[in-house]
Amino acid sequence: MPHPRARVRAFVDAPTFQWFIIGVIIVNSLVLGLETSPRLMDAFPWLSTLGWVTVAIFVVEITLRIYAHGRKFFRDPWSLFDLVVVAVALIPASGVLSVLRVLRVLRVLRLLSAVRSMRRVVAALAATIPGMTSIGALLVMLIYVAGVMATQMFSATDPENFGDLPTSLLSMFQVMTGDDWAKVIQPVTDQHPAAWSFFILYILVSTYIVLNLFIAVAVEALEKQHEEGDEEIKHEVEQAESDVLAAIESLRSEVAALRTEMSDGDRGPG
Amino acid sequence: MPHPRARVRAFVDAPTFQWFIIGVIIVNSLVLGLETSPRLMDAFPWLSTLGWVTVAIFVVEITLRIYAHGRKFFRDPWSLFDLVVVAVALIPASGVLSVLRVLRVLRVLRLLSAVRSMRRVVAALAATIPGMTSIGALLVMLIYVAGVMATQMFSATDPENFGDLPTSLLSMFQVMTGDDWAKVIQPVTDQHPAAWSFFILYILVSTYIVLNLFIAVAVEALEKQHEEGDEEIKHEVEQAESDVLAAIESLRSEVAALRTEMSDGDRGPG
Amino acid sequence: MPHPRARVRAFVDAPTFQWFIIGVIIVNSLVLGLETSPRLMDAFPWLSTLGWVTVAIFVVEITLRIYAHGRKFFRDPWSLFDLVVVAVALIPASGVLSVLRVLRVLRVLRLLSAVRSMRRVVAALAATIPGMTSIGALLVMLIYVAGVMATQMFSATDPENFGDLPTSLLSMFQVMTGDDWAKVIQPVTDQHPAAWSFFILYILVSTYIVLNLFIAVAVEALEKQHEEGDEEIKHEVEQAESDVLAAIESLRSEVAALRTEMSDGDRGPG
Amino acid sequence: MPHPRARVRAFVDAPTFQWFIIGVIIVNSLVLGLETSPRLMDAFPWLSTLGWVTVAIFVVEITLRIYAHGRKFFRDPWSLFDLVVVAVALIPASGVLSVLRVLRVLRVLRLLSAVRSMRRVVAALAATIPGMTSIGALLVMLIYVAGVMATQMFSATDPENFGDLPTSLLSMFQVMTGDDWAKVIQPVTDQHPAAWSFFILYILVSTYIVLNLFIAVAVEALEKQHEEGDEEIKHEVEQAESDVLAAIESLRSEVAALRTEMSDGDRGPG
Repeated sequence: MPHPRARVRAFVDAPTFQWFIIGVIIVNSLVLGLETSPRLMDAFPWLSTLGWVTVAIFVVEITLRIYAHGRKFFRDPWSLFDLVVVAVALIPASGVLSVLRVLRVLRVLRLLSAVRSMRRVVAALAATIPGMTSIGALLVMLIYVAGVMATQMFSATDPENFGDLPTSLLSMFQVMTGDDWAKVIQPVTDQHPAAWSFFILYILVSTYIVLNLFIAVAVEALEKQHEEGDEEIKHEVEQAESDVLAAIESLRSEVAALRTEMSDGDRGPG
Repeated sequence: MPHPRARVRAFVDAPTFQWFIIGVIIVNSLVLGLETSPRLMDAFPWLSTLGWVTVAIFVVEITLRIYAHGRKFFRDPWSLFDLVVVAVALIPASGVLSVLRVLRVLRVLRLLSAVRSMRRVVAALAATIPGMTSIGALLVMLIYVAGVMATQMFSATDPENFGDLPTSLLSMFQVMTGDDWAKVIQPVTDQHPAAWSFFILYILVSTYIVLNLFIAVAVEALEKQHEEGDEEIKHEVEQAESDVLAAIESLRSEVAALRTEMSDGDRGPG
Repeated sequence: MPHPRARVRAFVDAPTFQWFIIGVIIVNSLVLGLETSPRLMDAFPWLSTLGWVTVAIFVVEITLRIYAHGRKFFRDPWSLFDLVVVAVALIPASGVLSVLRVLRVLRVLRLLSAVRSMRRVVAALAATIPGMTSIGALLVMLIYVAGVMATQMFSATDPENFGDLPTSLLSMFQVMTGDDWAKVIQPVTDQHPAAWSFFILYILVSTYIVLNLFIAVAVEALEKQHEEGDEEIKHEVEQAESDVLAAIESLRSEVAALRTEMSDGDRGPG
Repeated sequence: MPHPRARVRAFVDAPTFQWFIIGVIIVNSLVLGLETSPRLMDAFPWLSTLGWVTVAIFVVEITLRIYAHGRKFFRDPWSLFDLVVVAVALIPASGVLSVLRVLRVLRVLRLLSAVRSMRRVVAALAATIPGMTSIGALLVMLIYVAGVMATQMFSATDPENFGDLPTSLLSMFQVMTGDDWAKVIQPVTDQHPAAWSFFILYILVSTYIVLNLFIAVAVEALEKQHEEGDEEIKHEVEQAESDVLAAIESLRSEVAALRTEMSDGDRGPG
């Protein structure tokens, strides 16, 4: 008879149970959305109950998984993520902690940990981030330098957009995204026409850096694919080499046999 | 004497007939456009007649194709598409069904099924969709989570953009597309300056996911092309291998001949 | 003594003359820009003279090139382009033909035909256009279908943006480019909330087609580069194959020589 | 006992010293940001002192590096960059030179020269610029031609956006970036509906050129990566070739040995 912990592990790792939990996550996500409407919550009071039932199922599920996997549960970052987002639901969200109520919607993200293909996508996205840090740092420096310059030069002319450093940084970020940039810089350029060159240079340089940030991500994604194709070709070449070497080796043994025969033949008649 | 059905099939499959139908589709498309102007329809009443003539041609064409191809017609999705968009034209579009009148313009899309190169493009576009589902689902989850959070936090501050969940979702979608995002979030950030971090984080993450969605499509398109090139190289390597092996084999037969001659020679003088 | 036509050809094809013409094109381009300011033209009347001098130089240059190259001049599309943009300057641009005055600025584009690297870039850009026609046609059809639908459904609600078909087509184009789309559709969605689904579907589909249009161009550009790399690898494989075959062939001749020697040896002592 | 200059060189090139300077650059960058707020400067007067201390450290550092590296210092562009941005801080920024005060924030960019990975990124970005010049020149010509045309045609209709050439160029640049383009061209298209075709043609062509500019950068980035993969495959093929040739050579020596033995054998009994 198997150990009870092994039986629980078989239960929580079974596809049926995991699909059931995915269903509960979806129901919980929908309830979290409907809860934003006080009118709906008054009309259908059982929605609130349904929400608490799903949370109760999550608590039971997490408890079973902790019992089943023991220490291994706490070593898996996805499991810890599940534990934290469920725990947030249990903290009384009144008074100072009422901000935690907002975090409850992060339970929707349990879908990421529950569905295997979503985990892979998130892992793949996270893997491309290191390749972006240097260019990302360059972009941050550009916005900072441009923001300080804009504050020094234009804070008097246009206090609304460039009054102090945080405002300038946000304006420069907005200009970089290309959203209404002509309107943001208009008060300044109306008074200092030469300011156009500052902003156009900034737009060109920041667009260029963002473009290279995007290309860095794309190149990293393509690199993996290439390496696989290149590996296959190399394998093909190695295979061809070993086939040819085997044929030559077999020929060599034939020549060696010939040589033996000949010396035997020499000796034979000798 | 061939079967009449075979004769009809030869007729409807002939390039001349297919080019004629393409011409009728284009005329029908133009009429559908001109029909949007009541002034034009009054000035040129024959436009309406022309529209009905093209529909009549479509009905005859579809009938002939059903007769010619029999069950095979109903197995081809493009043929079914043709049947449906033509059938919509015949339903009396009055009363409850008047909404169907709008769907008549879908007849323009018959060009997709009639021109072979368009079919290929549509098939190629459709083929890249499966590779996008996981990242697309991630994007939908992000918008949902951000929309619920924004409703909980900002519905009181800015009811116009974040008053209820559907409004918030649309606002978050608009912010993601980068259209006037600074104006959408201004009422909120004017009151809660800390909300900037929420929105900038959302813009960075959603842009990053959209970028990866685009890269996934591009990588899939490039993959096919690579595989073809890699296959050619592998074929070249295999060809080189078999040429070399053939040369070694021919050398081996020469050595074998030498061996036979030698043993003959040994025996010869012996 | 060479033919006078050959001497003229040597003169117009000399790098010195071509650099001189590039200089004249740049001067002419600047004058065309300055001519847009009536104030500048009044202050510096010699600008107008300078403009006519550059045009006179162009006329002499084209005449010399026609004399030098004869019929070949009229077969080169770049030469014909030069001829047309210079000819436009000579047509009296008064009365009905005053619109031609605007076309004079196309003389700036003579830089494209005069600088070799620019010709290559234009040729490369033009070469990617055929690969875009099918997806481009799909995009045009989408805008047309969406425009007709929007006119039928929303012309009464929002005559400014969807009053007739041309207006709707332009609005749909604007929505596709993502410029102020939320503001374009607001009058409609305020009255018909369900219209959101129509516009969001349109935005998703049109963005997807535009993305694929861009990818088609990128794939075409990358294809060329790949093919070169693949050709090099294939060449390397062929080279390796022929080296190996040559070595085997040389070995075979050694075996053949051995065989001859042996039969000689057999005969020798015999 | 080593030369004092060598000791100084070991000191300034030590990682500890370089990390210390990176720290000073970051402190200096923050102080430059805080200095934009007169209120903060009044509240914390020691901030100004801290700024001068960091500049003093920079002066000492640069002096030590010049002493340590001698002429080599002036040959390294990064070192010259460091020298210039520190020198700017020492010029009294009053009167005519007060514009130099704005340039002080460029000291933040010393991070680029101090951190090795940032240097590499900047060098990589700069390396892709030459591949863009031709397409970039094409884009500038397009904006110029469109700007001159728009001024000639629309300066009377819409003086605000197309009143003179500089204004038109900026408007055309704004239209190209897709920012509020519908609003920029509205005054013109309201009066001349045919102007739509001019602007839509401009948007399509400029977007197409920008797309190709982006693709040119991406292709250059991918090219490097491909070449590395292709080189590895070629190396693999060469390795396989030399292995096979070595095997054939060894076989040949066996055949040669056989031939020697045989002729010996022939001679032996002879």
